Amino acid sequence: MKVNSIIVFVITIISNTSFSQSVSSNVVEDFVPSSVNQQGKLYPQVNSERRVRASILAPQANKVQLDLGGTKYDMVKDDKGIWTGVSNPQDEGFHYYQLNIDGASVPDPGTVYFYGAGRLGSAIEIPASDRDFYAMKDVPHGLVSENIYFSKLTNSFRRCFVYTPANYNTDTKTRFPVLYLQHGSFEDETGWAVQGKANLILDNLITSKKAKPMIVVMDNGYAYKPQTNGARQESVFEEVVINEIIPMIDAKFRTIANRENRAIAGLSMGANQTMRIMMNNLDTFSHYGGFSGTSNYPSADAIDVNTFLDGKFKDANALNKKIKLFWLGLGTKEPSPFPGSVGAFRTMLEKQGIKYGYYESPETAHEWLSWRRCLNQFAAKLFQ
Amino acid sequence: MKVNSIIVFVITIISNTSFSQSVSSNVVEDFVPSSVNQQGKLYPQVNSERRVRASILAPQANKVQLDLGGTKYDMVKDDKGIWTGVSNPQDEGFHYYQLNIDGASVPDPGTVYFYGAGRLGSAIEIPASDRDFYAMKDVPHGLVSENIYFSKLTNSFRRCFVYTPANYNTDTKTRFPVLYLQHGSFEDETGWAVQGKANLILDNLITSKKAKPMIVVMDNGYAYKPQTNGARQESVFEEVVINEIIPMIDAKFRTIANRENRAIAGLSMGANQTMRIMMNNLDTFSHYGGFSGTSNYPSADAIDVNTFLDGKFKDANALNKKIKLFWLGLGTKEPSPFPGSVGAFRTMLEKQGIKYGYYESPETAHEWLSWRRCLNQFAAKLFQ
Repeated sequence: MKVNSIIVFVITIISNTSFSQSVSSNVVEDFVPSSVNQQGKLYPQVNSERRVRASILAPQANKVQLDLGGTKYDMVKDDKGIWTGVSNPQDEGFHYYQLNIDGASVPDPGTVYFYGAGRLGSAIEIPASDRDFYAMKDVPHGLVSENIYFSKLTNSFRRCFVYTPANYNTDTKTRFPVLYLQHGSFEDETGWAVQGKANLILDNLITSKKAKPMIVVMDNGYAYKPQTNGARQESVFEEVVINEIIPMIDAKFRTIANRENRAIAGLSMGANQTMRIMMNNLDTFSHYGGFSGTSNYPSADAIDVNTFLDGKFKDANALNKKIKLFWLGLGTKEPSPFPGSVGAFRTMLEKQGIKYGYYESPETAHEWLSWRRCLNQFAAKLFQ
Repeated sequence: MKVNSIIVFVITIISNTSFSQSVSSNVVEDFVPSSVNQQGKLYPQVNSERRVRASILAPQANKVQLDLGGTKYDMVKDDKGIWTGVSNPQDEGFHYYQLNIDGASVPDPGTVYFYGAGRLGSAIEIPASDRDFYAMKDVPHGLVSENIYFSKLTNSFRRCFVYTPANYNTDTKTRFPVLYLQHGSFEDETGWAVQGKANLILDNLITSKKAKPMIVVMDNGYAYKPQTNGARQESVFEEVVINEIIPMIDAKFRTIANRENRAIAGLSMGANQTMRIMMNNLDTFSHYGGFSGTSNYPSADAIDVNTFLDGKFKDANALNKKIKLFWLGLGTKEPSPFPGSVGAFRTMLEKQGIKYGYYESPETAHEWLSWRRCLNQFAAKLFQ
């Protein structure tokens, strides 16, 4: 087990033991179907306490559980063979979960499925008090386009999703700046435009003139050299971004193809990856966003600026002149090691005198509501 | 998405499609993971006999079944709690299925999920002998764009997917003809570009110059007037197509906005719907494709041309002059009522002397391989 997976494992154990499996019977009976259910599906549901109620027909099952947020809640069977269970109150936002039927972990047939935690699975949406910024509204909507390409560097077909703002197809002479936006570990190129709601966030920001119209490119952060004879996987994601993705996007879309109009950002693993790509390619990018992650992850130790990322943060004056925006975000409820490693990174920036922006998402953990909020804050500051 | 995961398989003759639950133990042991599995998932698998092997961990379950093609195959538990089961040989192509765990019908955690049969669920891909026409190849790929819009007629947000050919983004002065392409019942706007592989079919046809570059618009055929006080649902899909979708597409995309360069087609329910829309709007469309469906569905009775669709097929001379292409397709293994109703419709066309094209997909039923083949045939004949 790697260090970070040990940490995640420990967190899971802690959260498992700290949550009771028994749920008070006096829950508030104002449950409504989750907004990410399949059309017409009544379950799962969410109530005003932010509890989740799941339900499934399994007449011959011995034991059915709702597996949500690190806790397995026992469900109870009625005389029709329908199992129902209620969770403890959850954080606002988007949470992956699954059902366990006699030991089988399966998606809930009631929900839409999302790629996260290394698989396509169920999720629940607990309405957030500030959900208006990612709501679908009757405003001009941009397109999200699936773009398939063959990558010579990985010898594989790859795919990115490209958001073009609503006026891209009407102002046909206008060229646009580009944000390259990356997912986290065990996620893929679908995350930002599906559970991340990046398109709706940009649609709303652009309509209210809080952000400049921009193109957003969402690719897959897993990119490896073709393997030979069981050799260790070697990531070539940076090379794919610089030598394949950017030239392709600049050729296919009406971009403003210079560093002043190019930003790169990511969440968690994507924040770590894109920070390295940013610092190695300051002639390509001028704006950086790191949501719930930094390249010193998972360490919370003081950063040695002489050795960290080959000394890329040594010359504060040069960086402050060259970088237009260096921006970090974090949820207030994020588990270790994120507060520690992001904190150590900020300490380094401050000691060096490197300018940066910082945002904390209230009452959210290492989850998509943190990252939706980060994008909403960050995108409004781009290309100004 | 590996480039060369080529599966060598033997074409065997389907003996019958008996619905037995007992599967011979001497199955050919050359199973490989299905091409529509989630990345890294080893099950479900397919062998050269076109059998499906499913597998799931469910240590405490009493009974687990593979529910595929109308048959429930009992799976068997090993000493690790893993249940495994093998199906009878299946038709070539794409089939929905599910697992049943102690009476719960759930998606298989091994596969990607597809919207069909009224839900997001698992599917298996049995490699077809002619699969090359929908294979992902290193050719110029078009984009598939998600387009969200607010529909006043239905008072709801709707969505279509828009395929633009590879040269749409490079030949920025060129305008393109448009095919409006509809899904079947219990499916949605995702069907054609996901399990239908419409984008790959068009990419391959256009690259080999067998089809003209065209835009393909895939919307949702379910569109109802806002309901008042429990009134019966009233479809306004035709009005949505004519008054909302087409004007939107002509405004957002570089279309050739005239009837000569506009086609409409659909599968099953979509064939039925689009035939009505075609015949009611011959000033809007000049090409029609009906895959596994006609507007006399489900009747196999002789058609009274004076009353059918308000007499729209009475004047063969006028139709033969006005319609550039009227085209029908059907699988040779389609169940009742499709052969009967499509047959009765063809009889009417022939009696009237109305010109039409007809294609039969060999050895396929009312399923997606029939429709992929239909699109491949039909698209090559459009806008010539």
